[in-house]
Amino acid sequence: MKKTVFLSPAGFTCLGVNTGLRLSRPDTGIIISEKPMTAAGVFSQNLFRSLSLDRSISLIKKPVRVQIVFSGNANACTGQKAVSAMNIISRTAGTLLNCRPEEILLSFTGVIGRTFPADAISANLQKILSSPPEQIKKQSAGFPRAIMTTDLSEKISCCRIFRGKHSVVVSGCAKGSGMIYPNMATMLAYILTDAAVEKKYLDSLVKDIAVSVFNRISVDGDTSTNDSFLVFANGCSGRPVASYSEKKVFEKALHDTALQLARAIVADGEGATKFITICAEKVSSVKDAEKIVRAIANSSLVKTTIFGADPNWGRIICAAGNSGAIFNPAKVSLFLNNRLVFKNLSSVPGALPRVKKSFSGKNIEIRITINNGRENAHFFTCDFSYEYIKINADYTT
Amino acid sequence: MKKTVFLSPAGFTCLGVNTGLRLSRPDTGIIISEKPMTAAGVFSQNLFRSLSLDRSISLIKKPVRVQIVFSGNANACTGQKAVSAMNIISRTAGTLLNCRPEEILLSFTGVIGRTFPADAISANLQKILSSPPEQIKKQSAGFPRAIMTTDLSEKISCCRIFRGKHSVVVSGCAKGSGMIYPNMATMLAYILTDAAVEKKYLDSLVKDIAVSVFNRISVDGDTSTNDSFLVFANGCSGRPVASYSEKKVFEKALHDTALQLARAIVADGEGATKFITICAEKVSSVKDAEKIVRAIANSSLVKTTIFGADPNWGRIICAAGNSGAIFNPAKVSLFLNNRLVFKNLSSVPGALPRVKKSFSGKNIEIRITINNGRENAHFFTCDFSYEYIKINADYTT
Repeated sequence: MKKTVFLSPAGFTCLGVNTGLRLSRPDTGIIISEKPMTAAGVFSQNLFRSLSLDRSISLIKKPVRVQIVFSGNANACTGQKAVSAMNIISRTAGTLLNCRPEEILLSFTGVIGRTFPADAISANLQKILSSPPEQIKKQSAGFPRAIMTTDLSEKISCCRIFRGKHSVVVSGCAKGSGMIYPNMATMLAYILTDAAVEKKYLDSLVKDIAVSVFNRISVDGDTSTNDSFLVFANGCSGRPVASYSEKKVFEKALHDTALQLARAIVADGEGATKFITICAEKVSSVKDAEKIVRAIANSSLVKTTIFGADPNWGRIICAAGNSGAIFNPAKVSLFLNNRLVFKNLSSVPGALPRVKKSFSGKNIEIRITINNGRENAHFFTCDFSYEYIKINADYTT
Repeated sequence: MKKTVFLSPAGFTCLGVNTGLRLSRPDTGIIISEKPMTAAGVFSQNLFRSLSLDRSISLIKKPVRVQIVFSGNANACTGQKAVSAMNIISRTAGTLLNCRPEEILLSFTGVIGRTFPADAISANLQKILSSPPEQIKKQSAGFPRAIMTTDLSEKISCCRIFRGKHSVVVSGCAKGSGMIYPNMATMLAYILTDAAVEKKYLDSLVKDIAVSVFNRISVDGDTSTNDSFLVFANGCSGRPVASYSEKKVFEKALHDTALQLARAIVADGEGATKFITICAEKVSSVKDAEKIVRAIANSSLVKTTIFGADPNWGRIICAAGNSGAIFNPAKVSLFLNNRLVFKNLSSVPGALPRVKKSFSGKNIEIRITINNGRENAHFFTCDFSYEYIKINADYTT
C-alpha cells in the first residue's frame, strides 16, 4: 500500500488519544461527525462475540454521531459487566460531545475476558475531552495509530471522487493482524465519507464489500469476538450519491478503499514475510472456487513452505484435494508465480528451478485452474513464520 | 506410550531394510505372512491421493500375502508413472517372495510429485531378498523404524489376548507426524494379528476404529495423499474370533492398539512440546460435539498459546464460538486441567494463577461443557512451536 495520510472527510474529526488502557501509547480512537451519520456495518458471527457488537447493530438502525474505539481490552466474555462499562462510557462521552449515549458507537479490541476499567477510562476521557478543541487536536496521535494492537503499521486508504465544488472524500482505516478470517467482517475497519447516502443503499453496499473483500482474506483462520466493519456517511460535502453513474463511481471508491485496507491487513499479518494471492479459475461454482482458495490459504503446510521460499506444489495440490470441492484431478493445472508447474496429474519438467528463484521475492501468486466451469475466486493470505509463533505464544494473559 | 518392542504375531515376518530411497537409513518396511491374510483398510479421500491407494482398495477384496512400505517418496502426483512403478516393484517382489503381484500391497510416504525410481529400487530389493532369510533378519533395522519420515520415535503398540495354547497377538505400528487430520485414516498405520477373522467383520471393525480413533487426532489440519490404515489377520494362531465374547475381547484389543498409535502420533507431532486432550461434553449431537473439539484443535491461536504455556481461555472460547455448532453461550462452562475458568459468560475469579502453573506441564486438558444435550466427543492434538515452522519451512523440494 502506498504511503498516505489519513484524510478526514468534511465534517469529521478523528482523534487518537491515551485514556489509560495502555501505559503510554495511544489506545483510544475517536470519530466525531458534526452532522448525524448514516451508518452501516457487518459484525463477527462468533457466538461469544462482544456485547458491544449487538449494541452497534441495534444503534446503527438510526443515524449516529460518534464512534469510539478502545484498543487493549476486548470488553468481551465479561458478562453483564461489559454492558455496564458501555453505559458508563457512552453517558460520559455523550455529555462531553453533546449528543445522546445512543448516538455513540463503541468498539473494542484486545484481550478477551478482562473487565473493562470503565470508571478510570471514563474519568480520563472526561479530562481529555474537556480541553479546548485545538489542544485536543494538537495532542492527538491520529485515529489510525490509536486503534492498533499487534499491528506494525497504520492501515489507511483515502481517495477523492466527483472533483469540483462538491467533491467527496472516502477515507478508510483498519486495524488487525491476527484473528483474521472469512465468514465475517474480519477485523476493525471503518470507512468515512462526506457523501450523502441513503441508509438502505449503504446497507447493501457494505454487505457486498464484506463478502467480496473482507471475507476473502485470512491470516490464521480464526474469527475474533469483536470483528466489525462500519461505513459512515455524514453528507457534509453536500453531494448526494443518487444517480446511476454517481453510484458506480461511489461503489468503486468504497470497494477500492476496502480492498486496500484488506491487503494492508494481510501484508501486516502477524509475523508475515510474504504476501500470497490465491486464485481458483474455471470452477463449476463460486462456492467450490471459494472452498479451494480457502483450503489452500488455511493450510499450515502451504504457509510454512512459502515461508521457506520453497515451491512445494505437492502441498498446494494436496490442500485443494482436501477442500471438499468436487472436480476431476486429471484436469487441474497449477501455476506458481505465473509458471505452469503441474498438469495431467504430474509435474512439468524443468519448471521448478525458475519458480524457486521467484519464491525468494515478497509476492507469491498461486493460480489453480480446475477446468470444469466458468467461475473464479481469489483470496489473500500471508505465510507462517517463527515470528507468528513468537507473537502468539508470548501474548498475554 | 510405554516403551515396547514390536512383536510379530505368529506367521508374520516384519523387516526394515534400505533399498536406496534414502542415503543410509532404512527406508523400506516389509510385512510377509506365511498364510494368506484377510485385510481391511481405510484410505485418504484426498482427490489427489496416490494411485497406490486405489490399488490397495481393489486388492484387499481378496486375501493378500505381503505389504511393502516405501519411505521417502509418496509415488503420488506423477501420473501413470506411479502405476508403472508399482507394476515393476510388485512383479519383482512377487518372484522373490513366491506369490502373485496382486497379493502384494504397496504403501508410500514422502515427497509428493517425484518420480519413484522403480528400476533402481527393484534391483536393490532383489539383492536384499535373495540373501538367506537368516541374514536378511539379522540386517533388518525393524519395520517400525523403516517406515518413519520426520517421525522422531517409533510408534508401536502390542498386546496378547486369549491366554493359553491358542493365544492371539495384536501388533500395531504407525508412522506420521505431519499431515495428520480427520476425515480419513490419517497416516500410515498397520495392525497385524494372528487371529482368524472374517473379512466382513474386519471391514466393519476397521471403519469404526477410523471414525472413533484416527479421525479424532490432528497435528496440523492437513490430510495427505497417502494416508492409510490397514489391519491384517492371518489366522496362524489357530484361534478364530467368532463368539460374542471373543469378539468383544478382540475389538477392545484392536481399539486399544489403535488408540495407543494415535496418541503416539500426536505426541510426536512435528515440533510438538505438549499433548492436548480436548473434550466437548453434554452437547445436543455428536456432530456438534465434533465440530467444537475440531475447531479448538485446529485453531493456530489456541495451539500457539499452549506452546507459550499460557491458559488464554478467550482463544478457546472464541474457537468454539466459530465452530458452526449451535448452542447458547450463556450455558457454557470451560475447564482447563480440571479447573473451572469460565462460566456464565465470564471468567471465574482467581482460577487463572493455578491453571497457569499447571500449563507448564506436558499434558493439557481442555474440557468444554455445552449443556444442551447428552453427547460427547474428544480429540487429541499438539501445540504449534518454532520447531513446527522450522521442520516445514526447511522440508524439500
